[in-house]
Amino acid sequence: MSSHFLHDFLRPKSIAIYGANNTFGTTMGTMQLMRIISSGYKGKIFPIHLKLDKVLGYKAYRTIAEVPEIPDLVVIVLPPKVVPQVFKECGEKGVKNIVLISGGFREVTGDRINTLTEQIIEIANHYGIRFIGPNCFGFYNSWIYPENDGILNMMVWGEGLKRGKFSLASQSGTMSSHWGMDPEYIDLSVGKTISVGNEANIDLVDFLEYFKDDDETEVIGLYIEEIKRGQKFIQLTKEITPNKPIVAMYGGGSGAGNRAIRSHTGSMAGNIKIFDAMIKETGIIKTDYILEFLDIVSILSNPNFIYPRGNRIGIVTNSGGPGALIANNAERKGLIVPELSDSLQLKLKKILPSTSSWVNPIDVTFDMNIFNFYINLPKTLMRSGEVDAIIIYGAIGFHEMIPYMQQNEKLSAHVEFREDMADRLDEMDKIFILPTIKASQKYSIPIIYINPQNYASHWSKKIREHGGIVFQFWDRPVGALAKIIEYVQFTKKHS
Amino acid sequence: MSSHFLHDFLRPKSIAIYGANNTFGTTMGTMQLMRIISSGYKGKIFPIHLKLDKVLGYKAYRTIAEVPEIPDLVVIVLPPKVVPQVFKECGEKGVKNIVLISGGFREVTGDRINTLTEQIIEIANHYGIRFIGPNCFGFYNSWIYPENDGILNMMVWGEGLKRGKFSLASQSGTMSSHWGMDPEYIDLSVGKTISVGNEANIDLVDFLEYFKDDDETEVIGLYIEEIKRGQKFIQLTKEITPNKPIVAMYGGGSGAGNRAIRSHTGSMAGNIKIFDAMIKETGIIKTDYILEFLDIVSILSNPNFIYPRGNRIGIVTNSGGPGALIANNAERKGLIVPELSDSLQLKLKKILPSTSSWVNPIDVTFDMNIFNFYINLPKTLMRSGEVDAIIIYGAIGFHEMIPYMQQNEKLSAHVEFREDMADRLDEMDKIFILPTIKASQKYSIPIIYINPQNYASHWSKKIREHGGIVFQFWDRPVGALAKIIEYVQFTKKHS
Repeated sequence: MSSHFLHDFLRPKSIAIYGANNTFGTTMGTMQLMRIISSGYKGKIFPIHLKLDKVLGYKAYRTIAEVPEIPDLVVIVLPPKVVPQVFKECGEKGVKNIVLISGGFREVTGDRINTLTEQIIEIANHYGIRFIGPNCFGFYNSWIYPENDGILNMMVWGEGLKRGKFSLASQSGTMSSHWGMDPEYIDLSVGKTISVGNEANIDLVDFLEYFKDDDETEVIGLYIEEIKRGQKFIQLTKEITPNKPIVAMYGGGSGAGNRAIRSHTGSMAGNIKIFDAMIKETGIIKTDYILEFLDIVSILSNPNFIYPRGNRIGIVTNSGGPGALIANNAERKGLIVPELSDSLQLKLKKILPSTSSWVNPIDVTFDMNIFNFYINLPKTLMRSGEVDAIIIYGAIGFHEMIPYMQQNEKLSAHVEFREDMADRLDEMDKIFILPTIKASQKYSIPIIYINPQNYASHWSKKIREHGGIVFQFWDRPVGALAKIIEYVQFTKKHS
Repeated sequence: MSSHFLHDFLRPKSIAIYGANNTFGTTMGTMQLMRIISSGYKGKIFPIHLKLDKVLGYKAYRTIAEVPEIPDLVVIVLPPKVVPQVFKECGEKGVKNIVLISGGFREVTGDRINTLTEQIIEIANHYGIRFIGPNCFGFYNSWIYPENDGILNMMVWGEGLKRGKFSLASQSGTMSSHWGMDPEYIDLSVGKTISVGNEANIDLVDFLEYFKDDDETEVIGLYIEEIKRGQKFIQLTKEITPNKPIVAMYGGGSGAGNRAIRSHTGSMAGNIKIFDAMIKETGIIKTDYILEFLDIVSILSNPNFIYPRGNRIGIVTNSGGPGALIANNAERKGLIVPELSDSLQLKLKKILPSTSSWVNPIDVTFDMNIFNFYINLPKTLMRSGEVDAIIIYGAIGFHEMIPYMQQNEKLSAHVEFREDMADRLDEMDKIFILPTIKASQKYSIPIIYINPQNYASHWSKKIREHGGIVFQFWDRPVGALAKIIEYVQFTKKHS
C-alpha cells in the first residue's frame, strides 16, 4: 500500500460536492455527481446547495459547516468568484482535500497575476489543504474498492471499462476521460485517471511520484501542455521508465497549438525541440496522435502482453496486400521483417498449400486450413527464434456470417455447414485462439490479431476475452509496436 | 451510359460459376456464389459441377456446353491445372467474359515463364475472351440495377453498404473488399470495386479508362503493386485528376514489402522513389496507410462534401486538449490554423462565456449552450470567410446517456430532465445538425464532426444520416483533409 498522500486523496470515504442539482444537463457539477452515484461509489455523499433540500436523493446542506462530519474530499463546481470564500469555509471545517473543477481562473487572464488563483493558493496553504485543479474534470479510480465492484468516477462517460493497471494524469480533461466512451473501440484496462487542470497546488510531478511506487500502477500515461518542475520531472521519469513505461502526448508545438494552450491553461507552452530533447533522455514513449497514444497504452496495459525482445516482426496473413503494407510500414518505422532461414522456410512449405508464400510475410492465400493459420504457423514462428513479435492479418470470425446464411431466405434451404464449423462454433475461440495465446506466453513472443470486422463482433470479443490483442486495421498496431520496441531497447541500453 | 467494354462486363444478365458447392466454408467458389445470391443478384445462375445436380438451389450442369444459353459471365474457381481446358470449353461455347478467381498461376513461379498463364492468355486471345484475374476476388457492382435494389457482389462481406460513386480497382483482393465488413466504422458509399488480380488480360489501366467517362464514378481508388503500362497510366491519370480525384495506395517500397509482392502477384515491385515521382506529376492523392486511404475516399465520396477552397482550418471545440492537438497536427501537415481577425473575435466573444477562447481554436469549455456550439459558432465561422474548412470536436450525443440515467436504480427516482432536452431528444439532430450542414452547403465550407462515442451511437448515426461527416477521434480527419486540400491546390495549379 502506497503511503503517498495522493493514495488516500483518491479514495475518500465521504465526499461533499458544491454545484450539483437534480436536473440532467444543467451544470457540470450535476453531471459529475450523477456519474459518481451511477458508477458505484459506496461512501457518504453530502451535496451542498443554497436552496435545494435534496440533491439526487441525498440530503443537501446549506453550507459545509452544517455537514455532520469532516468530508474526506470536497468537490467544487461553482463560479470562480465565490471559490475563495468556499475554500475558507472548507478550511475552517477542517477539510484537507479538494477537487476544484471550476474554470475561469488562470486560463482566462493568461500569465498576468491572477488574484483569484493567488487567493485560493494562499487559503489552501493557510489551512493545509491540498487540491487538484482549478479547471479540471476530477478523477476516476477503479481501485477504490480493490476487493469489490464500484468505482469513484467523476468524469468518464462509458460503462464497462475494465479495471487495470494503467494510470493517467492529464492536463486536459478530455484526454483523461473521453476515450472511456467506447471501451470496445479502445480496449483499455484503466486504474486511475486524473484531470489535473491548471495545477495550482497538485501537479503532474506529484502524480508521477505517487505512480512510481503504486502497486496498482504498471503503465503511466501523461498528457502534457506545460511542465512546471522540469528538473524534478526529468529525474523522476528517468527513475520510473526502467520499471514502468510512461507514454506521453504533448499538446504544444505549433503556433496555433501554443495559442490553444495559452488560453486553455494560461501557460506558455514550451518549445517543441526542447521538449523532445528532454523526453528523449528519459525513455518516455512520446506520440503526437491520440489514437497512437491509446493504442500503445492499451497494448501495454493488457495483462497478457509480453515485451518483444527485439525488433524482428513475423507477419502471417491470408492476403498479400495487407502483408505488403504491414511490411512496408514496419520497415518505415525501424522494425525488421526478416527473410526466414532456409530450414524454417522448408518447415513452413511442408504445411502450406503451393499458392502460399513462406518467406515472411507468410501468406497462406486462399487456404481454408484454419488450424494452420491460427495455430501451426504462429507456433512455428514462435518456436523458431527468428522473430520477436507476430502480427496476424485476417482473423475474421464466421459467427455473424453463419446465422446470416441460415436466415437468408434465398440460401437457408440450401446451405450446408461443415461439421467442424457449425457444431463447434461456440468453442472455436477455445480451439483456435487460446492455444496460441498460451504459446505466446510460453515462448515470450507477443502476437497481435487483425480482424477487419467491428470490435464488437463475436470473434474480436472472443479474442479479447482470452487476453488477446485485436485491431481492426493494420496501420495502428505497427506504429504502436514500433514505439514499444524502441522503449524496450532504451531500457536495455540504460539498465 | 458508358460504351466501354467493362460497363457490360460488370452487369451480366447471366453467370455460370465453376467451383461452388453446397457447404459453407469449403471453397472460395462456394463463398462467392453464396455472396452473389444473398446480395440480390437478379440474373440467371448456372453452377457447373461434375457431381452435384443442384448447387445452392440452382440446377447444376456437368459442363459449360450443357448450359442452355451463352452466359454473359463465367466465374472460375478451380485448381489452376484444369483452367486452360475450361477456358477452351468456354471459348467453344461462345463465352466472352470471364472472372478467373483461382490463384497459383504467375504468383508462384515469379517472373519465370509460366506455361499455364501463357496458355490461358493464348486461348483467350484465340476466342476473343476478356478476363479479370487470375488470383482475384472478382467484383462488386452496386449499380447493376441503378433503379432498384440488388448488387452483384462476389466478395464484400458486410451488409448495408450504401450505394455511391466511389469506384475502386485493386491489385489486392483484401483491399477491394475487407473494409466492407464494417460499414459503420468506415462510412463508404461504394459503387464498383474490382479485384484485378494478376492482370493477365484486363489491368488497372483498363479500369481507369472505364472510370474516366463513367457517370457512376466520381471518386477513384487504386491499390497498386505494379503498373504494367506506365506511360498510359500517367497519361490517363493526368486526364482524370482534374475532374475526378484518384486516391492510391502502393504496396511496394520496403525490402519485405517487395518480397511480399513478388510472391503475391509475381511482379517485381518498383522503386518507391520512381513511383512517388511519377505519382506526383499526376495529381493522384497517395497514402501509405489503409485507414488514411479509407478516410480520404469516404470523405470524398460523401455526396455532401464540399472541396475546401483553401487550407485555413477553423477549429471549434469544447475541450482545450483536442483543440491544441488538432491545431498541431494541422500545421504539421501543411494546413493553417489562422488567428481570427479582431472583428471576428469580438463577434465570438459576445456569444461565448468568459472562460472561452475565441482566437482559433475556439474553445467553448464547459459552456452548456449547445445552440452556440452546434449552430452559431460554425455559422459565424462559415460566414466570416476566414477559414476554408471546420473541424468540430465534442459532438457527443445524450441519447444513450439519458436512458442510462433513467434506468439506473440509484438515479432514476431523482434525476429531472431539462424540457428542451428530454422532450426534444428525437428531433435534436434536426435542430442542431441539419441547419449547420445546410449552412456548410450555402457557404461552401466543409465541416467535420468528431464524436468520441462509437460510430454506431445514436448521435453519430444521426449526423451521418443528414449527410454529415463524423470521426471518432481527431487524428484521422486532419490527415485526410490535408491530403484532399493538397489535391485541390494541385488541380487549381494545373487547370
